[in-house]
Amino acid sequence: MDFTAKQISEFLKGEIEGDPHVSVHTISKIEEAQKGSLTFLANPAYTQFIYNTGASIVLVNRDFKAEKPVKSTLIKVENAYNALAQLLSLYEKSLPQKKGISSLAFVAQSAKLGKDLYVGEFTVIDEGAVIEDNVKIYPQCYIASDVTIKSGSVLYPGVKVYQNCVIGNGCTIHSGAIIGADGFGFAPQNDNNYMKVAQIGNVILEDHVEIGANTTIDRATMGSTIIKKGVKLDNLIQVAHNVTIGENTVIAAQSGIAGSSKVGKNCMIGGQVGISGHISVGDDVKIAAQSGLSSSIRKGKIIMGSPAFDHDKYVKAYIHFRNFEKLIKKVDDLEKTIAELKSENT
Amino acid sequence: MDFTAKQISEFLKGEIEGDPHVSVHTISKIEEAQKGSLTFLANPAYTQFIYNTGASIVLVNRDFKAEKPVKSTLIKVENAYNALAQLLSLYEKSLPQKKGISSLAFVAQSAKLGKDLYVGEFTVIDEGAVIEDNVKIYPQCYIASDVTIKSGSVLYPGVKVYQNCVIGNGCTIHSGAIIGADGFGFAPQNDNNYMKVAQIGNVILEDHVEIGANTTIDRATMGSTIIKKGVKLDNLIQVAHNVTIGENTVIAAQSGIAGSSKVGKNCMIGGQVGISGHISVGDDVKIAAQSGLSSSIRKGKIIMGSPAFDHDKYVKAYIHFRNFEKLIKKVDDLEKTIAELKSENT
Amino acid sequence: MDFTAKQISEFLKGEIEGDPHVSVHTISKIEEAQKGSLTFLANPAYTQFIYNTGASIVLVNRDFKAEKPVKSTLIKVENAYNALAQLLSLYEKSLPQKKGISSLAFVAQSAKLGKDLYVGEFTVIDEGAVIEDNVKIYPQCYIASDVTIKSGSVLYPGVKVYQNCVIGNGCTIHSGAIIGADGFGFAPQNDNNYMKVAQIGNVILEDHVEIGANTTIDRATMGSTIIKKGVKLDNLIQVAHNVTIGENTVIAAQSGIAGSSKVGKNCMIGGQVGISGHISVGDDVKIAAQSGLSSSIRKGKIIMGSPAFDHDKYVKAYIHFRNFEKLIKKVDDLEKTIAELKSENT
Repeated sequence: MDFTAKQISEFLKGEIEGDPHVSVHTISKIEEAQKGSLTFLANPAYTQFIYNTGASIVLVNRDFKAEKPVKSTLIKVENAYNALAQLLSLYEKSLPQKKGISSLAFVAQSAKLGKDLYVGEFTVIDEGAVIEDNVKIYPQCYIASDVTIKSGSVLYPGVKVYQNCVIGNGCTIHSGAIIGADGFGFAPQNDNNYMKVAQIGNVILEDHVEIGANTTIDRATMGSTIIKKGVKLDNLIQVAHNVTIGENTVIAAQSGIAGSSKVGKNCMIGGQVGISGHISVGDDVKIAAQSGLSSSIRKGKIIMGSPAFDHDKYVKAYIHFRNFEKLIKKVDDLEKTIAELKSENT
Repeated sequence: MDFTAKQISEFLKGEIEGDPHVSVHTISKIEEAQKGSLTFLANPAYTQFIYNTGASIVLVNRDFKAEKPVKSTLIKVENAYNALAQLLSLYEKSLPQKKGISSLAFVAQSAKLGKDLYVGEFTVIDEGAVIEDNVKIYPQCYIASDVTIKSGSVLYPGVKVYQNCVIGNGCTIHSGAIIGADGFGFAPQNDNNYMKVAQIGNVILEDHVEIGANTTIDRATMGSTIIKKGVKLDNLIQVAHNVTIGENTVIAAQSGIAGSSKVGKNCMIGGQVGISGHISVGDDVKIAAQSGLSSSIRKGKIIMGSPAFDHDKYVKAYIHFRNFEKLIKKVDDLEKTIAELKSENT
Repeated sequence: MDFTAKQISEFLKGEIEGDPHVSVHTISKIEEAQKGSLTFLANPAYTQFIYNTGASIVLVNRDFKAEKPVKSTLIKVENAYNALAQLLSLYEKSLPQKKGISSLAFVAQSAKLGKDLYVGEFTVIDEGAVIEDNVKIYPQCYIASDVTIKSGSVLYPGVKVYQNCVIGNGCTIHSGAIIGADGFGFAPQNDNNYMKVAQIGNVILEDHVEIGANTTIDRATMGSTIIKKGVKLDNLIQVAHNVTIGENTVIAAQSGIAGSSKVGKNCMIGGQVGISGHISVGDDVKIAAQSGLSSSIRKGKIIMGSPAFDHDKYVKAYIHFRNFEKLIKKVDDLEKTIAELKSENT
């Protein structure tokens, strides 16, 4: 399946610089690209590679100015990364798609199945579950009783969804993700034992949510743990019971949010971040990787540290921390000087 | 299934304030509760909601004094959270329970199965495994050869238990937990390669242990990794080979304990904590979230930081860290003043 | 299966001190060993136990000198830990081995299967997959289309390998590990939504790689995420898209490496470490547990902290941090003294 620069440029509404007849059959990274492949340049750190890349076509931002000759044909677009995403998506859709309900899946009698489904081998769809049209459920998934999975969602192999949970339209859930396991709730007893607090709520993923591999989202004690529209969670993230995550918030791998906390919309949260229970994070907040948030934080803040505070203030304090030895020496020197002054004065 | 305030109060040995004939059919959070639902008030931070809640019944602690009129019927009990836990448990037990051995499970010939079991679809129970009475094993679990699962335990979908491990009575293991994978043991060789050290021990969970989703507990090199009676582990926790965790210790999500360390009983360990290998943590120790423990710690200590030390001392030191810029300025000012004094003196 | 000290010593090319005819049937830890078991002493912290151990045989380093009488027969070897590893490996190989292709597995028609395989129940091997000789795939694994698994590799129950990934010779992958899920790539749009960037690359594990339980390794956006020969990854680790990890590098549990970073060979990385995206880590680097690396680091460095810097410098700075209160007091005292000196001078 070859495409010419002309065809691609027309699809992307771009502008060609170079040979419009050169053709490509694959997509590669700029530093590895060979003849016959298309690549892109979006991150300025990679600009050096454009002058030597073997790629036949390079997508660049409209404002890109070559400082040396470029052998590849350029296609100039508004946003090279977006354009690449469009092409990758097209490429992926051109691959063979899974379909049909495997005779080796187990579908309970009262489950309701929509049209144009894929249900893989050894998947279980339990009583009362509702699977809407165009859903893909790969092998070895478990869809508990009374779960709803809305139209167009994809569950990769081994996803487990506990009873009563709701997966919105167009969601993507990667292998090993666990949706709706019990929240971590125990009532301490007088003899140091704990009594388990049954977790009777559920998890709701709204539309277009993506959940990474082996991420866990616990069901609410009562009510719902809610992941709103457009949220993207990376791998190995923990979301505790009764948490709410606002629209289009993005969280990197291995972060955790403790029980009942509310995260606003459009937040960007780095990897390995911890957010304490029963607090709130305003909209548009940015949290640096490995930070720990122990109290509520207002809209738009950028924070860092454990416990976290203002990002810029943290960075400055940390420079002083790195140079702590110098400060100690300086104070010791001052102490000596003062002692001398004092003895001179007496 | 409706219950009146009178019935519930008798069950909980509580005291009614308000209409004893009002009835409820569900349990909700105080801020979301509607007519027909029961709720509770235990955390003082939520007291404000009791004056406007739509709940028909609210469980409160016996010492609760309303400061404004409350529309709901109150049931006063010794401990509202415990009382709630009792009702939630009752509610959960009233739901339909899974039972029977699916014809789509694989049970090896030499496995011994007790009475009143649930074994779900596509679960494997291998040679020599012993499953005692009243155990529930959901679909897609793997119970390796010679594993024992004692009476009343529940394994949710996709739990994997490697060979020879022992699960005690009344344990709960959530989806994706891996019990008994190889410990991380490699002997460095002269050429920078590593030789794998075979892990021939096992994992023992004592009674009433709860293991969260996607938590991993590695088998011992030799002997056993032991999780004692009543321990509660949240999601995505790592427990390395030959670790022992003492009775009723509770650990929040994403914490990790390295090889051969011993954690005491009744400890409370926050989320994302790391504990180094070959150290011991005394009984009743509390460790703040994201702390890192690199040496042994005695009974009853409360610690924070990475590396962790006394909690209160850490909090104070961290306040100074946040204000580092001020300290630096102060020292610079002192330096100037001293320089002036010195020049005056000469 | 009993072995005498003489037989074991000959196998290990060791030297006996004590009764060569004493025999053992199992391997135990030195502090728990009973009559009939063999143990070892490698870590000096455990030397105390050799004088009271019940073990019949103890492997010790050739330079071990007993300071008190030892009841056990000693076998002196070049490296006691290596010798133990050899015996454990022998012991493990003597256990019954899984073999055959379960009639309850699903193997697609176009998959190519080698000789002497084990394929467990409810495993799926999809179209075009190539499984070479002597591979063991336990139950409930998913091998997607066009995956290659080379000779002698072992996949424990529930491993999921997405399409086109390559597993080298002699690899070990533990339960719940996810190889090849989508990298976390989203192109931000004007309305705060994100467009998913399709991930069309793959993951390549070279030979003799070990992957821990529930570890996730994402496929590349384009090209390959590469885990080189001899790398050992512990449990619950996150490896993002387009990462490369160099030969024989060892990473402890719950660490994460963000997108496109390159880690050198022979590195030792502690638990819960975070490595930012698009940076490089030189060969032979050591990173302390819980550290966070935010910029590239050269060959051979030993680092600690978040953000991480020189290990020894960090340790010193942290001692000052612990004693921050004292420094503040000292500076306050100096301030007073200076104020006094100043008033005296005027």
